[in-house]
Amino acid sequence: MLVDETPLFCPSLLSDLDWSSNTVPFSPPVSPSSPGEGLLLRPLCMADYNRGLFKVLSQLTTTGDVTPEQFMKKFEHMKQTGDYYVVVVEDTHLGQVVATATMITEHKFIHSCAKRGRVEDVVVSDACRGKQLGKLLVSTLTLLSKKLNCYKITLECSPKNVAFYQKFNYGSSEETYMQCRFFD
Amino acid sequence: MLVDETPLFCPSLLSDLDWSSNTVPFSPPVSPSSPGEGLLLRPLCMADYNRGLFKVLSQLTTTGDVTPEQFMKKFEHMKQTGDYYVVVVEDTHLGQVVATATMITEHKFIHSCAKRGRVEDVVVSDACRGKQLGKLLVSTLTLLSKKLNCYKITLECSPKNVAFYQKFNYGSSEETYMQCRFFD
Repeated sequence: MLVDETPLFCPSLLSDLDWSSNTVPFSPPVSPSSPGEGLLLRPLCMADYNRGLFKVLSQLTTTGDVTPEQFMKKFEHMKQTGDYYVVVVEDTHLGQVVATATMITEHKFIHSCAKRGRVEDVVVSDACRGKQLGKLLVSTLTLLSKKLNCYKITLECSPKNVAFYQKFNYGSSEETYMQCRFFD
Repeated sequence: MLVDETPLFCPSLLSDLDWSSNTVPFSPPVSPSSPGEGLLLRPLCMADYNRGLFKVLSQLTTTGDVTPEQFMKKFEHMKQTGDYYVVVVEDTHLGQVVATATMITEHKFIHSCAKRGRVEDVVVSDACRGKQLGKLLVSTLTLLSKKLNCYKITLECSPKNVAFYQKFNYGSSEETYMQCRFFD
């Protein structure tokens, strides 16, 4: 049982976001500080291991069997770098994670030693669709990357999700995304 | 003047690569330990600031004016994370960097807390084209990511470079690469 509630990153980064600069319409209105009745949007903490984090992630892709020790080690590494912004939405009635998304800041020497953001692993639990949580997470992480002075933020998505991301001002790049896979 | 020759990562990671598993033909044969006459392939170090690192990077994109302090700070952060593998090729006669490329390991909770690799900022100086250095750098970083247990390695490239990367077993993904740019 992991009981550590220490957040992966400072929660004020979320509460201090200038939500008025969000350009995506929400109906009913939601925000990082008011994500919906009985819901809480916050940084990941270790105790989320016992709140079904991997159950939600398994709706995105294969997660494998991860021990508490493996999870803690990965969490600690992410925290130590200061570049991982994994957020979760918790159903506070159930005490369960119902959605998660990640933004990573990647460091460059180009563009005056700039940072860029990357959106990864966005998933909303089947049981919580229709609550605008995916939209809320992506809008939150996009605003966060701008606040952290990233010069751009990027992601890779399936063609059927292109229209979704266009809402947040993401455009299809003329660059080609290529991958070399070693194992699944 | 930055004089610190401490490598960004352990040089043995390059010298210990199993080059026999490289599948790309080189003519004449070159390798990470024998990149060509008068050339040295090695991890980045701080002293490369004074060896024209930014002059080479400026052939890729805008670099801006970067002070030694900014460079050192960025280098230290990359080193502290342990996830940045910036390699350079030095012309040892001139004492100048003539090519560079970066591989970053990105940490995940999915796929049994896996890592993925990302290739970024590959550039060979105009004056050193035709020496297979781009091919050598990409092959080296791809093998390195596999050795470091990445489950895949990805990159974004202009359509004209797709055929180049296919040589290393990269395939065009069906996913779409999208970006949201805040400033240049």
